[in-house]
Amino acid sequence: MNRTAGQATNKVRVVVYGASGYTAGELLRLLWQHPQVEIVGVVSNSQAGVALSKMHPHLAAELGQLDTIGADALPSCDCIFFATPPGVAMRKVADILAQGVKVIDLSPDFRIKNVELWQKWYGMQHSETNLLKEAVYGLPEANRLELSKGEGLRLIANPGCYATAVQLSLLPLAANPAYKEVLERNELVVDAKSGVSGAGKQAVERLLLGEAGEDFTCYATSGHRHQPEMEESLNDATGVRMHLKFVPHLLPIARGIFSDVYVPLNIRNISDVDSLRAEYENFYKDHPFVNILPQAVAPRIKSVRGSNFCHIGIYATEGSKYVTVCAVIDNLVKGASGQAIQNMNLAFALGETTGLQQPGLAP
Amino acid sequence: MNRTAGQATNKVRVVVYGASGYTAGELLRLLWQHPQVEIVGVVSNSQAGVALSKMHPHLAAELGQLDTIGADALPSCDCIFFATPPGVAMRKVADILAQGVKVIDLSPDFRIKNVELWQKWYGMQHSETNLLKEAVYGLPEANRLELSKGEGLRLIANPGCYATAVQLSLLPLAANPAYKEVLERNELVVDAKSGVSGAGKQAVERLLLGEAGEDFTCYATSGHRHQPEMEESLNDATGVRMHLKFVPHLLPIARGIFSDVYVPLNIRNISDVDSLRAEYENFYKDHPFVNILPQAVAPRIKSVRGSNFCHIGIYATEGSKYVTVCAVIDNLVKGASGQAIQNMNLAFALGETTGLQQPGLAP
Amino acid sequence: MNRTAGQATNKVRVVVYGASGYTAGELLRLLWQHPQVEIVGVVSNSQAGVALSKMHPHLAAELGQLDTIGADALPSCDCIFFATPPGVAMRKVADILAQGVKVIDLSPDFRIKNVELWQKWYGMQHSETNLLKEAVYGLPEANRLELSKGEGLRLIANPGCYATAVQLSLLPLAANPAYKEVLERNELVVDAKSGVSGAGKQAVERLLLGEAGEDFTCYATSGHRHQPEMEESLNDATGVRMHLKFVPHLLPIARGIFSDVYVPLNIRNISDVDSLRAEYENFYKDHPFVNILPQAVAPRIKSVRGSNFCHIGIYATEGSKYVTVCAVIDNLVKGASGQAIQNMNLAFALGETTGLQQPGLAP
Amino acid sequence: MNRTAGQATNKVRVVVYGASGYTAGELLRLLWQHPQVEIVGVVSNSQAGVALSKMHPHLAAELGQLDTIGADALPSCDCIFFATPPGVAMRKVADILAQGVKVIDLSPDFRIKNVELWQKWYGMQHSETNLLKEAVYGLPEANRLELSKGEGLRLIANPGCYATAVQLSLLPLAANPAYKEVLERNELVVDAKSGVSGAGKQAVERLLLGEAGEDFTCYATSGHRHQPEMEESLNDATGVRMHLKFVPHLLPIARGIFSDVYVPLNIRNISDVDSLRAEYENFYKDHPFVNILPQAVAPRIKSVRGSNFCHIGIYATEGSKYVTVCAVIDNLVKGASGQAIQNMNLAFALGETTGLQQPGLAP
Repeated sequence: MNRTAGQATNKVRVVVYGASGYTAGELLRLLWQHPQVEIVGVVSNSQAGVALSKMHPHLAAELGQLDTIGADALPSCDCIFFATPPGVAMRKVADILAQGVKVIDLSPDFRIKNVELWQKWYGMQHSETNLLKEAVYGLPEANRLELSKGEGLRLIANPGCYATAVQLSLLPLAANPAYKEVLERNELVVDAKSGVSGAGKQAVERLLLGEAGEDFTCYATSGHRHQPEMEESLNDATGVRMHLKFVPHLLPIARGIFSDVYVPLNIRNISDVDSLRAEYENFYKDHPFVNILPQAVAPRIKSVRGSNFCHIGIYATEGSKYVTVCAVIDNLVKGASGQAIQNMNLAFALGETTGLQQPGLAP
Repeated sequence: MNRTAGQATNKVRVVVYGASGYTAGELLRLLWQHPQVEIVGVVSNSQAGVALSKMHPHLAAELGQLDTIGADALPSCDCIFFATPPGVAMRKVADILAQGVKVIDLSPDFRIKNVELWQKWYGMQHSETNLLKEAVYGLPEANRLELSKGEGLRLIANPGCYATAVQLSLLPLAANPAYKEVLERNELVVDAKSGVSGAGKQAVERLLLGEAGEDFTCYATSGHRHQPEMEESLNDATGVRMHLKFVPHLLPIARGIFSDVYVPLNIRNISDVDSLRAEYENFYKDHPFVNILPQAVAPRIKSVRGSNFCHIGIYATEGSKYVTVCAVIDNLVKGASGQAIQNMNLAFALGETTGLQQPGLAP
Repeated sequence: MNRTAGQATNKVRVVVYGASGYTAGELLRLLWQHPQVEIVGVVSNSQAGVALSKMHPHLAAELGQLDTIGADALPSCDCIFFATPPGVAMRKVADILAQGVKVIDLSPDFRIKNVELWQKWYGMQHSETNLLKEAVYGLPEANRLELSKGEGLRLIANPGCYATAVQLSLLPLAANPAYKEVLERNELVVDAKSGVSGAGKQAVERLLLGEAGEDFTCYATSGHRHQPEMEESLNDATGVRMHLKFVPHLLPIARGIFSDVYVPLNIRNISDVDSLRAEYENFYKDHPFVNILPQAVAPRIKSVRGSNFCHIGIYATEGSKYVTVCAVIDNLVKGASGQAIQNMNLAFALGETTGLQQPGLAP
Repeated sequence: MNRTAGQATNKVRVVVYGASGYTAGELLRLLWQHPQVEIVGVVSNSQAGVALSKMHPHLAAELGQLDTIGADALPSCDCIFFATPPGVAMRKVADILAQGVKVIDLSPDFRIKNVELWQKWYGMQHSETNLLKEAVYGLPEANRLELSKGEGLRLIANPGCYATAVQLSLLPLAANPAYKEVLERNELVVDAKSGVSGAGKQAVERLLLGEAGEDFTCYATSGHRHQPEMEESLNDATGVRMHLKFVPHLLPIARGIFSDVYVPLNIRNISDVDSLRAEYENFYKDHPFVNILPQAVAPRIKSVRGSNFCHIGIYATEGSKYVTVCAVIDNLVKGASGQAIQNMNLAFALGETTGLQQPGLAP
C-alpha cells in the first residue's frame, strides 16, 4: 500500500479520516493545494456519501465532485490523517499501521505519553499503550530529526493548538541550560486566548454568535488538557521540568491563538531583552515557520490567519522581573492541520514548507 | 521593456503602483503566489523606502525584504497595476503605455466611458478622454474576447466591486433578448451589502470597530458611483438599457459583498425558476469563477472569502412577480485584485485561472 | 386574581412564562426596571427551580434570588407574558383568561387570523380558533385604540420582529388612500436583515460564531412566516391588500433589524421625498417610539440597540421610480419584549412609554 | 452657584465638559436617566452649537433638542464632569472650584499624585500641583469615606478603566496584612484585555473594523500609564507597595475589560480558594457594584456590558502557586462614566446606586 517507485505518480496518496469538522476542512483546503499530494478519500462514518461541498461550501469549487466514504471503504493510500474526537483514532491506528500506512493523528489520542495522565485528562481508558510510546510528538521545531526518520516513523501525534503556541514560546529558553533553574521555579504564567474554532464545530450555546460574540471569558478554570501535554513534551524535548500556570480564554473571533508567557528572567536592563530576542532568532533561524518580531512590532492574530506561521514578540518593562513572550498562530493551521501537513512533509521527505507557503489573509 | 523571447525567464514582470491599501495588499498576496509572475517593484510615493512587511504584516514572510520605491524609480516591467485613489492613474498611464507596458487600473479612472458622467460622479476633470475610449472594461465574463487580444490590448479598467457582483447577476438575463423588455422597464431593485474593506483603509470615524462593529446601515442614499458604471457596462456588453435602483449598505465585517437583485420576471410557477437556474448555469459553463448554487443552498459571503469565486443563488416565492438573484464575492478578490489578475492572465495568455485557484478561507 | 383596589400595591403583578430564551431575558431586564410592575413569577417547565441568574448572568444583580417555577405553580397575577416556542401559549391561554388574567403572547400563536394560513406556516393544527379571532394584534402604532380597551381586552398577539419593522415602514402610506393603488400593484420589495438573536438562543450550527460571524447570507428563500403576518395585519389595519416580496437575511451581529422597503411611488422630483417625509412625521407625531430621520441621516442599528425606538429614513434617487423606506429596530425590544411592555402599558393604562424610555446602548 | 435650599428643584445641576467622545456619550446616557440630576449644559469647544443627537444618534430621542455650548458659556451649576483629553481639565479646574462648583475629572489629569511620575507618563508639565494633592481618587470601594465628605470635597480624579478593574481585584488582598509580604514580592502578573472604546473615538488605522476586527494584539509593550496609577493608588489606600507586571491587550469588541491578576499565594489545597472567595465576599458585602462569582461561574464581559457592575471570579489549579483573580467591567461605565456618577452620588449624598441600577445588556 506504500508508494513505490513503480507507480505512475509520485504523489503521496492521503486519506482524511473525519470530514465535517473545522480541522478536516482545513486539511482539505491545504492538501488540495499541495503539489505532491493526492486526496484519495475522505471518511465520514456518520455522514458517509454526503458531498464535501455541502459540509464545506468554501471548498465547493475544488471538491465539488467528492463525496465522503464510510470507514469500511478505506482506499489504498500512503498516509491517513485523523481529524476525529478523542478515542476514535486510538482504536483504528493499529490495523492501519499494520498495512504499512503512516498515521498523523490530529486528535489528542497519542499526545500525552504518561498513560495515567492521559486517562485522567481524557476520562477514558487508553487501549494502545504501546503505540502511545511509539508515537512521535509532531512539533517539528522540537522534534524535526525524529519526524524525518522516514521508514522508521509510523505514527505522529499532532500537538494541541495551545500546546503549539506555548512550546514555541518556551523552546529557545528551555534549550539553554542557563535558564533551567528559572524555568523550573514554578513561576511561569501562561495567559492564552483562542478563537472559537478551537472548540470545533460544536452546536453548543456558549459558542453561538449571540453568546460568544462581543464577549470574552476564561474557561477550564480548574485545569486544561493542554497543560500536561506541554509540560511533558517540553520535558521530553529539553529535560526541563516546568510547571505552567495555564489559563485559557475564549476570543470572540473564529480563528487564532494569542498566548502570553510570563517568564521571571530578572533581566537587569530593558535592553537585555534584545540579546534574548537574538537568542530566539538564532534558535529559529532554520525553522521556516517561526518569525521573531522586532522590538517595535506586536504580534497580531490577523497576521497569521490562514497561514502556518507563528509570530513571536518578546518584551520587557522597567522594574519588572518578568519578560513577556507573546506568540500568535492560526489554531487551525500551525495549531492543527498545517502542522500536520508540515509533519507529513518531513515524514515523506517532501520539503518542510511544500504546500504551506500561503500568506495569511488580511484584512 | 516588454517580455521578449531572449529573456531568461518567461515570467510576467509586474509593478504594483500603490502600496499601503487593501487592494495593493491583496494584489501582493496573490501575485506572490502566481507561478508566472515576478514582482519587480511596489510604488509608494508617500511612503517610498518603507518595508512592505510593515504595511502588510500578514505578508511579512514573503515580502520581508521588499521595500517600496518612489514613482520616479519605476523598473522595467511588462505590466503595471494601479491600486491608487481616483485621479492618480489617469495622469500616469499615457507615459507608461508609450513604453509598451500594459496597465491594469484598479482605480475608477477608466471605468465609465461617458466623460460627462465620469466627471459628474468623480468630481474632477478627466484629462485622458482618448484613453477612456481605448480602455477595455475588465469583466472577463462579459468581455473575455476583448481582454484576450494580447498585443492590441494596452489598458484595462478593472470594475468596481459592487459593479462586479451586480453585473454577474444580470448578464445571463441581459444576454437573452427574451428578457430585454422586462429589464428595461425600470423595475429592477438592487439591495447590496459590503464589508468595510470596500471603503479602503481609511482612518475615518464611521469605519471604526467601535462604530461599524455590531452595526448595519445604508449609505450613499442619494446615489453611488457604481450605478452609472454598471448600467453603462451592461448596456455596452448586451445592448440592454437598464435602470437600477441601487442601495449600498455597510456590513460589520472586513470582506465580502452580498447583492440581492430583484427582477420582475413574473414567472408562472415557482418551479420555472429551475429553468432560469439552468440558463444561468449554461451561460457560465465556460466561466471558471462563477458557480450557480442549487435551489436548496443560499450563498454565503464566507464561502468566497479570500477566493476569486462568485456564487449565485436564484430564488422565487409564491405569489410574487420578482425573482431574486443573490450573488456573493470577496470585494478585494473577484471585486478587485483577483479580477485584475484574471485580466492579466487573459492579457498575457497565461491561462485564466492561473494563480487564482486558492479556495476560500472558512471559518 | 385581578389587581383590586384593596391591594396594598397598585403595581401590575406579572408572570413571565418561558425563562431561558432571549425574549424572556429581555422581558425580565425591562420589567425589572418598570416602576409600576412587580414580577411575581417566571415559569420554566424544562428547568423549574433553576436560578435566573444562571440563565441570564447579566441580570444576576437584580434577579439574584429569583428561581424559576413550574407551570403548575402559577402565582396569582394580573398579566402573563408568553415567551415560548410556537404551540405552547395556544394550549394554555384559555384557562388563564378564564381567571381574569390578561395574556400578552410574544409567540406567534395568535398573530395570523386566517386559520388555514396560520396552519400552513406553522405546520400544526390551531386548537383555539375563537381565541385567534379575539386576540388583538399588538402593534400600537396601528391598533392603539383597540389595545387601550382595558377590561374588554384579554389577549394580545405581540407582532413578529420583521413584521414590526416592515409595518412601521408602510403604515403611513397605507393609511393614505392616495397610495392604495400603488401599494396593491404587487411591486413592493422588502429586503430585511436581522441579527442572530432573532432566531432565539438555539444551539444550531448555522448560528455559531464560527459560522455566522464574518458572514452574511439570506434564508427562508422559499418564504417566511412573517410575510403572511404583515400582509394580513396591514390589510386589517388599513384595508390595503399588499403583496410583499420579502427576503430575510442574517446579519453577523447579536441584535437589530434593518429593513429596506422599496415602494414604486414614481415621484417626479427628488425633493418630493421631503413632503413624503413630512407625511411620515405627521403620521407618527403622537407615537413616541417612532422617529423619522432627516434627509442627511441614515438609520443605524446601533442607534436603537437596547431601546424601544424605531428610526425610519426615506430616500429617493434620480431616475428611479422607487422610494426606499429604511427602518431599524432592536428585534428583542421594539420587535418583541419592549413592544410587549408597550402593549401592557396600554392595556393597563400605565402610560405608553412608562419603563421604556431607556436610550440605546452605543458604542 | 451651589444648590441651595431656596431652589425650586433639588436636582443636582450638572455640566458635561467634552461632548463628542464615548465617555461623554455614556455620561449623557446615564445622567439623563438619573432621577436627581438635571443636565444644564454640554460643552464642546471644537463643535459648539452642534446638536448632540448628531454626535450620539442613540440618544436622539432624549437629547433631541440639546445643542453643545462653548466653554465661554458655562451655565450656573453644581458639578462639572470633564470628559476631555489629557491636559484640558488641569487648566480649567481652579477657576471652576473657585466658584464653589465640584469637579469630577474623567481625564487622567489628577490621577497620579506623584508629579514627576505624572509628567513622565503624560509627557507634559503639570500646572496644578496643589490641586493634584487635593484631588480625591474616585474609587469608591477604596475611598468611600473621603468621597462622602460633602462640602469638604471639591475635586475627584476618576480612575482609569484598567486601574479600576485591577484594583478591585487586589483590594481585598491588600487590605489584609497577612498578604502584604506576598503582594510586595514583585511576582504579580496582570494580563488585561480591553475593547476598542477604551482608546476613545479616535479615527486611527489600528482601530478600524477592518484592522481590529477578527484580531487580537498586545500594545504599550514598553509600559502603560495605568500601571503607575494603580500601584500608587493601591499603596495610598492600603500601604502595600506592589509592583505589577501589566500587559494590556486589544479585544475585537466595542466595550468591556477582562483582567487576569495572577497572585502567587501558594495555597495548600485547591479548596482553600473557597475561603479566599469568602474573604472577597466579605470585603465587598457593603459595596453594591462588586459581585463575587461562585466557583463554577466564569466572568463574562457581556454580563456587565452597559452596567456599573464588576464581576470577580477567583480560581486555583492543582500544582500551581498562583491564584487567578479575574475581573470584568464595562470600561465606559464602571471604568469611566458610571463610576463618575457613583462618585457624584457620594459627593452629593444622593445614594450610591441612584441612577446606576440598569442591568447589563445581553445578548
